[in-house]
Amino acid sequence: MGRWAPDSRGRLEHAAMELYGERGFESTTVAEIAERAGLTERTFFRHFADKREVLFWGAKAFQEFLVSNVDAAPASLPPIDAIAAALGTAADDIFEVRRDLVRQRQAIIDANPELQERELRKLASLASALADALRRRDAGDPASSLAAEAGIAVFKIAFEDWIHGAGERTLSDGIRASVDELRRVTGRQRPAARR
Amino acid sequence: MGRWAPDSRGRLEHAAMELYGERGFESTTVAEIAERAGLTERTFFRHFADKREVLFWGAKAFQEFLVSNVDAAPASLPPIDAIAAALGTAADDIFEVRRDLVRQRQAIIDANPELQERELRKLASLASALADALRRRDAGDPASSLAAEAGIAVFKIAFEDWIHGAGERTLSDGIRASVDELRRVTGRQRPAARR
Repeated sequence: MGRWAPDSRGRLEHAAMELYGERGFESTTVAEIAERAGLTERTFFRHFADKREVLFWGAKAFQEFLVSNVDAAPASLPPIDAIAAALGTAADDIFEVRRDLVRQRQAIIDANPELQERELRKLASLASALADALRRRDAGDPASSLAAEAGIAVFKIAFEDWIHGAGERTLSDGIRASVDELRRVTGRQRPAARR
Repeated sequence: MGRWAPDSRGRLEHAAMELYGERGFESTTVAEIAERAGLTERTFFRHFADKREVLFWGAKAFQEFLVSNVDAAPASLPPIDAIAAALGTAADDIFEVRRDLVRQRQAIIDANPELQERELRKLASLASALADALRRRDAGDPASSLAAEAGIAVFKIAFEDWIHGAGERTLSDGIRASVDELRRVTGRQRPAARR
């Protein structure tokens, strides 16, 4: 097997995260990543187009996962619940199992404005793909866009809490709590109007 | 008065928008903008740090306007309503009166991925400033972040509709409709649960 070991992708990813964290994203070269992983540059480029893709390939996978979950949700499920259910499943299946790597990645992105802008663009594209998935469910407009954007807002806030928290709550619990809070916040209960 | 005419800022802005639209943002130089406006480069740099600031100075003004409106809102107003009211006032006072310029600017940003990323970052910073303003009103967390993010979602959708629409609805009407739709979308009314 040697350098074709089935985990070369994972080794490259771990090596890249370590180096980005130690030296900064800008100062790290592909040659250094390959060396740290005990692989060749050639192998790196078999897996990733460039050093940025190591950070962002997961965003594409995350989007595909969410969209296929929304597509597969029961037709009776309201838009916001279809989004929330997909996010909860992604939280368990994608994020919870690789929490350390996700945290490492986030620290790298938080330290680099250019990567932050890229991350925001990925989230915007995710919202737009989810809105399209809701339209396929005949959720209509602007309900589809609003439910998708609200879902991303919920995810952002739950994710931040999860990434900076002490691990006392799972991401999917955080997402559920965040959806409930969104319902409360957008509800019509004005303190002065109670009777 | 000559080149110190009080409207040099506006002339530079209009000249820049025209040129960005005609030649693209990347291909336009500050010298060309100044020439088109009948002013000097020196005057350009008295008003703007660089050619990107012509597009983004308004984002800062918009943020300050919203934050001061939220700060000044009656304490009894729930978070989402304080945000919606501020957005509605900004729509009338800032956007409606310069619709053509806003449209021109948006077409330039839509044509350039780097400017889109910058725009998304400005919106993220706006959401964060609004969440801080809600915290000052003791709205708590995560209610403050959620109401702010939801407010930005509402604005994005109403803005897109307004910018691409035929002018049949004002932006502030669009914002009101979008908030109502968000309440409906996040409401607990599931079709199957009615009795």
